[in-house]
Amino acid sequence: SPIITLSAGPVDAYPVVLRALSRPVTYDFDPSFQKFYESTVLKTAESLGTARPPVILQGEPVLGLEAAAAALIGADDVVLNLASGEYGKGFGFWAARHCRELVEIEVPYDDAIDPEAVSDMLKARPDIRILSVCHHDTPSGTVNPVREIGAICRAHDVLTIVDAVSSFGGMDVHPEDVNADIFVTSPSKCLGGSTGLCIVHVSERAWAKIDANPAAPTGSVLSLKDWRDAWRPDVLFPFTPSVSEIHALDAAVQNYLDEGPEAVWARHALTARACRAGVRAMGLDLWPVRESICADTATTVRVPAGLEDAAIRQEARRRYGVVFSAGRGSLLGKLVRIGHMGPVARPIYAVVAVTALGGAIAALGGRADVGAGVEAVLAAIDGAE
Amino acid sequence: SPIITLSAGPVDAYPVVLRALSRPVTYDFDPSFQKFYESTVLKTAESLGTARPPVILQGEPVLGLEAAAAALIGADDVVLNLASGEYGKGFGFWAARHCRELVEIEVPYDDAIDPEAVSDMLKARPDIRILSVCHHDTPSGTVNPVREIGAICRAHDVLTIVDAVSSFGGMDVHPEDVNADIFVTSPSKCLGGSTGLCIVHVSERAWAKIDANPAAPTGSVLSLKDWRDAWRPDVLFPFTPSVSEIHALDAAVQNYLDEGPEAVWARHALTARACRAGVRAMGLDLWPVRESICADTATTVRVPAGLEDAAIRQEARRRYGVVFSAGRGSLLGKLVRIGHMGPVARPIYAVVAVTALGGAIAALGGRADVGAGVEAVLAAIDGAE
Amino acid sequence: SPIITLSAGPVDAYPVVLRALSRPVTYDFDPSFQKFYESTVLKTAESLGTARPPVILQGEPVLGLEAAAAALIGADDVVLNLASGEYGKGFGFWAARHCRELVEIEVPYDDAIDPEAVSDMLKARPDIRILSVCHHDTPSGTVNPVREIGAICRAHDVLTIVDAVSSFGGMDVHPEDVNADIFVTSPSKCLGGSTGLCIVHVSERAWAKIDANPAAPTGSVLSLKDWRDAWRPDVLFPFTPSVSEIHALDAAVQNYLDEGPEAVWARHALTARACRAGVRAMGLDLWPVRESICADTATTVRVPAGLEDAAIRQEARRRYGVVFSAGRGSLLGKLVRIGHMGPVARPIYAVVAVTALGGAIAALGGRADVGAGVEAVLAAIDGAE
Amino acid sequence: SPIITLSAGPVDAYPVVLRALSRPVTYDFDPSFQKFYESTVLKTAESLGTARPPVILQGEPVLGLEAAAAALIGADDVVLNLASGEYGKGFGFWAARHCRELVEIEVPYDDAIDPEAVSDMLKARPDIRILSVCHHDTPSGTVNPVREIGAICRAHDVLTIVDAVSSFGGMDVHPEDVNADIFVTSPSKCLGGSTGLCIVHVSERAWAKIDANPAAPTGSVLSLKDWRDAWRPDVLFPFTPSVSEIHALDAAVQNYLDEGPEAVWARHALTARACRAGVRAMGLDLWPVRESICADTATTVRVPAGLEDAAIRQEARRRYGVVFSAGRGSLLGKLVRIGHMGPVARPIYAVVAVTALGGAIAALGGRADVGAGVEAVLAAIDGAE
Repeated sequence: SPIITLSAGPVDAYPVVLRALSRPVTYDFDPSFQKFYESTVLKTAESLGTARPPVILQGEPVLGLEAAAAALIGADDVVLNLASGEYGKGFGFWAARHCRELVEIEVPYDDAIDPEAVSDMLKARPDIRILSVCHHDTPSGTVNPVREIGAICRAHDVLTIVDAVSSFGGMDVHPEDVNADIFVTSPSKCLGGSTGLCIVHVSERAWAKIDANPAAPTGSVLSLKDWRDAWRPDVLFPFTPSVSEIHALDAAVQNYLDEGPEAVWARHALTARACRAGVRAMGLDLWPVRESICADTATTVRVPAGLEDAAIRQEARRRYGVVFSAGRGSLLGKLVRIGHMGPVARPIYAVVAVTALGGAIAALGGRADVGAGVEAVLAAIDGAE
Repeated sequence: SPIITLSAGPVDAYPVVLRALSRPVTYDFDPSFQKFYESTVLKTAESLGTARPPVILQGEPVLGLEAAAAALIGADDVVLNLASGEYGKGFGFWAARHCRELVEIEVPYDDAIDPEAVSDMLKARPDIRILSVCHHDTPSGTVNPVREIGAICRAHDVLTIVDAVSSFGGMDVHPEDVNADIFVTSPSKCLGGSTGLCIVHVSERAWAKIDANPAAPTGSVLSLKDWRDAWRPDVLFPFTPSVSEIHALDAAVQNYLDEGPEAVWARHALTARACRAGVRAMGLDLWPVRESICADTATTVRVPAGLEDAAIRQEARRRYGVVFSAGRGSLLGKLVRIGHMGPVARPIYAVVAVTALGGAIAALGGRADVGAGVEAVLAAIDGAE
Repeated sequence: SPIITLSAGPVDAYPVVLRALSRPVTYDFDPSFQKFYESTVLKTAESLGTARPPVILQGEPVLGLEAAAAALIGADDVVLNLASGEYGKGFGFWAARHCRELVEIEVPYDDAIDPEAVSDMLKARPDIRILSVCHHDTPSGTVNPVREIGAICRAHDVLTIVDAVSSFGGMDVHPEDVNADIFVTSPSKCLGGSTGLCIVHVSERAWAKIDANPAAPTGSVLSLKDWRDAWRPDVLFPFTPSVSEIHALDAAVQNYLDEGPEAVWARHALTARACRAGVRAMGLDLWPVRESICADTATTVRVPAGLEDAAIRQEARRRYGVVFSAGRGSLLGKLVRIGHMGPVARPIYAVVAVTALGGAIAALGGRADVGAGVEAVLAAIDGAE
Repeated sequence: SPIITLSAGPVDAYPVVLRALSRPVTYDFDPSFQKFYESTVLKTAESLGTARPPVILQGEPVLGLEAAAAALIGADDVVLNLASGEYGKGFGFWAARHCRELVEIEVPYDDAIDPEAVSDMLKARPDIRILSVCHHDTPSGTVNPVREIGAICRAHDVLTIVDAVSSFGGMDVHPEDVNADIFVTSPSKCLGGSTGLCIVHVSERAWAKIDANPAAPTGSVLSLKDWRDAWRPDVLFPFTPSVSEIHALDAAVQNYLDEGPEAVWARHALTARACRAGVRAMGLDLWPVRESICADTATTVRVPAGLEDAAIRQEARRRYGVVFSAGRGSLLGKLVRIGHMGPVARPIYAVVAVTALGGAIAALGGRADVGAGVEAVLAAIDGAE
């Protein structure tokens, strides 16, 4: 078994979340659970910085993304999908199922979307109704400027779908701040929660569009509408919620609010900054083309020439018990991913990451100056004092 | 908060399941989790009495039913849906989304399907390709003769979808025994597990039909196909499984196998038999028209004339802390449901149920001879000695 | 395994206590634990209705009683021990190890101490310095009038040791209210906590006496003095506290304060009252000679002539999964004990108790009108409306 | 709150232990618990490499040491206590309470006992009946040659008390291998268990001596005799065992047996070796005078001149969230202790320890070459390949 998991998710949950998971399972229609559910949803809204209760879908975030596409995108819609990585690109496949035309802006997967390009496209194609963008494209470890993109969309009256699955809770990103009409996130990444739920914020404009979409699913696990008012104690659940996952969500969100969001973001940022410093000091290359687009919640490292990513990950796991994530899709084999999410978003884990990565590379005959790497991590931590 | 929950589900999970829920969340692609997942699926197959690994869908059983309809039923298919209750009837709505024609046999919701009627219909309509039936129609507390129906279907080369959500694990019903081609069940009813997963057995014939169905979903949370081989450690998960729910499933199934299925069924049966005896001895009426179709896993009681079901349930909860389930759909207000599933499938809980139900009715001015009811429960327990 | 435990302790812990037990074990000298410990002790003081931080001894309550005797009783002391049951009598053995002379008032073990007898004895023997009394003598299910006795002791300037192990938290008994100088209780009875700790309130007068006693233990697990100031974060623990048990104590006390002590006592009292009514209505005899001395936290029932207590308990466990406690010492075989402590101090468990006891007796050929018993329980519950 | 605890105990418990702690609390006299207790004790005996069921005392290991002294040492006995550290020295205080004469061999607390000195003393004082020795004197991080000492004692027919509290489970030390007549250990150090119990092996010779000692306690929490046969399901517990702690002990021992003792010792040894290499490579000094007496379960580092130990520990905790132990007694302020016990007995934690210690020292203006330290840790890990 691994000793320390530094994956890009699912991540190690906080102990308080694990304890919440072991709460007795209760009958979902009992008033005590209905009130608990309401309280959890309202608390989640608070964490999202909004007064609108989010929809909690009873499955992991891909359900939220698939459901968002199905609900929001009508048969007459032109959708602009921004693809700066595997996840952003992937959303296009769901969008294409429902829309009249899918337009894309695509950049290399070690780069980020330029807001100007979005602005230009929206001018060129005034028929675009919906834009979709991934904030932190996890397989790349890069972030897109969703705040700027959201403002541009609003100016063009374009509805925006933002995938903030692996950034919300670890970075300062909130649906209303970034003008997101649908904002999908997860309890199991930066919130250090469990993996079986998905949080979907839907703006008033988005609900209006969904209500007007005859193809928006109902009577389906894919339905946003079915769950729209499920947070209200006087409304029946459309089907059984995942009781234990709700217990876990409650604990994860409470834990986040108790620690203080700013403090949580700060330790995610410091851990990532220290990790990047260590990686570079070892003589390795970050995957993103420039540091300003690196996520605070995962660090991606280019696989050194002559080595195989699987061998590096296996060696790190075998020697040190440290687990990293592989690349995905077209990036498989090109990079190694180090997660900084939830309980491991702590600078000491940057030491662990740099040592295990460098040690594994060195053991395989690569070049990695681990001593310099760890010194650089410590210097970055010093810099935060 | 309630003290004793005798709902028709979700039910109180076994303590060993609650402990399993608090296991550390692990990275799903780590080999240790992949092996754990395989082991859980194979163990679940064993509990189902089959060598075929079931598909585990990452949501509650309605996901499995919706997914089964979407995968199996093609645009040219004629489907025979058997409706002896709200759940059986409800499946027809999913079936109707996909089929050319939906045929139904419907009986009053306090009765069960007659296998002869099925046989007659299949003779009359040889174009029927698929039959769907709910074994225990939970809102009614009645069971359909799925074994006989399955044999008839096989004789007519008709594929069968069996909803065994609230019977498997508490009664002797297994996919291959009843000739089910798709058999959907839940960890959170008679297995006393958690609510966030669904177990779907798919026969070889059903897979062949699904493979031939161009509309069978892929790249979707609704897809059976995506998860078909996910149990194999060398196959990547299509999306993130609900790690904690898998931990819970493993514990629930292991607990079932450790206690011994026959012993588990026996205590479900005895609890239900004792409960029915107590209900009748109090002078109340069972909902089903005859006792031979009563489920071993829930007892439904007709609301006495002049009383309201909600008042009865509230009084039972307020006075005694005992929670029952309400009716659903067209049965709402007509009956009260007492669950006998998992940890509460123990005869002593028949005493609790009878006392709380009778006490509540008496407190509301109804007639219920609680003393006679409890004596009858004890006599039924004696009868099992 | 048993299904429902109605023992006189250890009792089933509340779920919140079980979750607290699973908190990570922390280094006892870390400031975070030292603060947690302080907070737990102060919260426990609050529950005791006093501003004096109690001593938490790291073992079950007999440790507290043995330690109290060793610390308080000096070689020149005359001690009056009140013996109305096995536990009260038993304290005399510890007292006798340390005192010059042990005086006892003993009554039959189905009766309680008369305060007048205490008053008379203290007048007759003005050299008595210390009195010891058990509030709820658990093996008998009887309570002594500790409030009256405490007042008499105070008037005679006699120090009082009160064993409130199985009454505090379920009845209105607090050290300063009853003039107790040492008051020993447990987290694992009415508080529904864990079994590994003991709570010892020590008055200022008692500390003065202990400080003056050269034989009071130090450097020992038996020492009250070693732990006197351990609650202060700036004082080192004399040895390692039971970290997980402290977690459990914190949860148990918080749970008690959250529910509200009056509400907790009320449900203990109602459960006991209903249970006694049911027992009598079945035609069985309570063990105590009169109902006014029956404890709210356990009901003791005389074994009917011709039956064996072990057979009754075994039959209740085998048929119904219900566990009762046996008698102890000289009372073994004469009575059966039904606990009403913590989570099972709920009237519905009086139904369970009466049914299982009566059913077992009837199954063994004895006479017990279970129907009448359950009706009487319900009537008692009605009476509380 | 700390992030990573590398204390010398209590240590972070294994997750499986935390889950076991959350098992329902059961009535201790129920047959199911009595069998569980027996099974736990026999499993513990297996881990100790003996067929003799150990005594489980219901408190932390100092209870075991105090109880051992009280039971074994009679008023006529001459006891030889070996003092190479605070804990060894401390046992002398308990021994002195009971013996006729206490003889000591004392060496500086950074050194270990020479078996020849023991041999010489036993020759010189043939009236010595009992020898006491601490295997790993935790405050010093040094180990005594208990195997050699035990053999010498046996040759002189001297009974031996061995304190193996912080070595058993992390090193190859077992009571019969080292001729220990009383062998005291803990679930909460190298076994990664909970803190509230103590394991005491007692040889047949020791029981004979105890039985012959009229002062051996009975009717006391200090009594070994009371608990001697408590493991037998047909013997009543003398007082209530700490139910949850027994659950935890069972899990900790099972976990140890499942992983395989040799594998567990190997990772303790490798972690310690790597840690020592890192400490030295940073330019710091180990506390023990020579590496051959360093424990596998804790590394002690001399506080560099000009720095304060408390400042170092606080800085490590504040910057990195890493907790170390302080010195104790006369060693307070002279050294910092790094634990390698249970779940943190993994080489990656030597990286964490070296980095946090070196980083803290450097931050305080001391000299510590962290880069070289981490490289040395990795080289040590490489050496184990």
